[in-house]
Amino acid sequence: MIRFQDAAAFGAALDALPQPDDAALAAARTRQAVLTKPAGSLGRLEEIALFMAGWQGRERPVLDRVRATVFAGNHGVAARGVSAFPVDVTAQMVANFQAGGAAINALARACGAALSVVALDLDSPTGDIASAAAMSEAECLAALNAGAHSVAADTDLLFVGEMGIANTTPAAALCAQAFGGAAADWCGRGSGVDDAGIARKVAAVESALALHGAQSVTPFETLRRLGGREIAAMAGAILAARRLRVPVLLDGFICCAAIAPLVATQPAFTDHCLAAHCSAEQAHGRLLGHFGLEPLLRLDLRLGEGSGAAVAVPLVRAALAAHNGMATFAEAAVAQAL
Amino acid sequence: MIRFQDAAAFGAALDALPQPDDAALAAARTRQAVLTKPAGSLGRLEEIALFMAGWQGRERPVLDRVRATVFAGNHGVAARGVSAFPVDVTAQMVANFQAGGAAINALARACGAALSVVALDLDSPTGDIASAAAMSEAECLAALNAGAHSVAADTDLLFVGEMGIANTTPAAALCAQAFGGAAADWCGRGSGVDDAGIARKVAAVESALALHGAQSVTPFETLRRLGGREIAAMAGAILAARRLRVPVLLDGFICCAAIAPLVATQPAFTDHCLAAHCSAEQAHGRLLGHFGLEPLLRLDLRLGEGSGAAVAVPLVRAALAAHNGMATFAEAAVAQAL
Repeated sequence: MIRFQDAAAFGAALDALPQPDDAALAAARTRQAVLTKPAGSLGRLEEIALFMAGWQGRERPVLDRVRATVFAGNHGVAARGVSAFPVDVTAQMVANFQAGGAAINALARACGAALSVVALDLDSPTGDIASAAAMSEAECLAALNAGAHSVAADTDLLFVGEMGIANTTPAAALCAQAFGGAAADWCGRGSGVDDAGIARKVAAVESALALHGAQSVTPFETLRRLGGREIAAMAGAILAARRLRVPVLLDGFICCAAIAPLVATQPAFTDHCLAAHCSAEQAHGRLLGHFGLEPLLRLDLRLGEGSGAAVAVPLVRAALAAHNGMATFAEAAVAQAL
Repeated sequence: MIRFQDAAAFGAALDALPQPDDAALAAARTRQAVLTKPAGSLGRLEEIALFMAGWQGRERPVLDRVRATVFAGNHGVAARGVSAFPVDVTAQMVANFQAGGAAINALARACGAALSVVALDLDSPTGDIASAAAMSEAECLAALNAGAHSVAADTDLLFVGEMGIANTTPAAALCAQAFGGAAADWCGRGSGVDDAGIARKVAAVESALALHGAQSVTPFETLRRLGGREIAAMAGAILAARRLRVPVLLDGFICCAAIAPLVATQPAFTDHCLAAHCSAEQAHGRLLGHFGLEPLLRLDLRLGEGSGAAVAVPLVRAALAAHNGMATFAEAAVAQAL
């Protein structure tokens, strides 16, 4: 398992990103060309099969161990009235995850993913980013490592999700810091806040950027000042996955915002990731554009928890079922194109 | 099982379309409102759950019996050089379906659908639509009934697919007849024909419309003159499904073109259908626009066989998993919005 010793080790990991296995990728491409279908006719499913082959290092990639972790954290900025739900809901939903009653439980079961839940110091909310850093260096490192530690090397496909009342506010701050634009460009309704709530959110993000912007000079420092525990944990998990060449399905706005500081520094960081979906949260599409990723699904989801990634897992299963299970033209005695 | 006695019975069935179960729909809507998630946050998955509840007549719809049939037929118009593949491929691919080696076999297995294959007189291609009617009245009725007969009343979700070298040409003719526009608007590359092939396709469709347009005054007559056996079978199956209140996942361009004459006559015909995907075949998006359907997936598929519908089945499974499997706010002791 991966563990970052300190902030410098986190930065160094980001500067030495492993690449996919070119030989497996080439073998998979050769196989695709002789399967009994018109060339290219399975569209993005063919691309997914090649992506999985490269990152798993197998001509015929598998999906036996799909693993998901939901990280939960609380946020000091919630006291500014930026969410439609009370902060107690974070802990209540963690209990719901543990009892198996949340959407992600049902969706993880449906897609065959093993689900873990990691609650991160829910009784100690992060600092209010509008007036302080979210975390100390030690707290941020602990959160990153909670994420990194959760990723097993033999995972065939990983996704991570989150629960944290008010966490679209730090997510918006991370995006604005990483890619510029006005605070309002990155602030949406989250779980359903009204116009006054959005105005409070924009004000909080503006204050946070004014306070921390100049000092947020590394991905670590940006996550520490503007992020949150579950957000840093997701970033740590997705970076650890890259170190282990584990392919990742990115969930929605918070999941993507968590890696925004990493992508701003290393544009190729998302090479081991597929964007599962584009959320109804308005800033998500903008963020995926900065990542250069085309989402697999557009279903107007805006729940978080990893729910969108879970819904996309069967698309990867379908891609691999076709790639691994189809006969070749020669095997089936089917004529190729004229 | 459904059987149409004659062309008039087919037309009469289209004039007496059953509606969804309003009580089940209302009960499902009430349930959705108290599940542990922000209202509306599962987006289209919530709509799918309600759609399934209405057509299955169950507050908590199930997906135990997903059934798929691939119909195959040959086309006289293939002799005009409108396809990238030789006509023998239809029979070769039917053998591949029966041996389990085609994309639809792998994808049906992956999505838990029971797959049937119905080859329709492959040794007797339909008439060349550019110079004759595709089928006699008896032939068209037999094809419609092959489709209708294939649909069992206890099916939880149905999709139909097709195999038929050259069948994007009759499909284009059906669309142009149903919704107008130039032949070229409805003619794409199919399985990969070149520019000269597209020009031959456009010419064939123009000839077919000039020859049959004025007499294609009913859906039956349009299918008989401009369609094909596997195309009429799909139309018969989807109409039979409506009679039985079986919900349908529509596949790609050919599947949708098969019901174009029915939708042109009865715009509410697709109420029991979800559009699984939008194909890379350029006319499919235009056709879905005429249907007023927003596709669930856009993955640049263009294979047919029911492949796109199979890929979308897990989205329905996910929708029902969340709808049926989630705890309510009261059950989980989670606070609702502020």
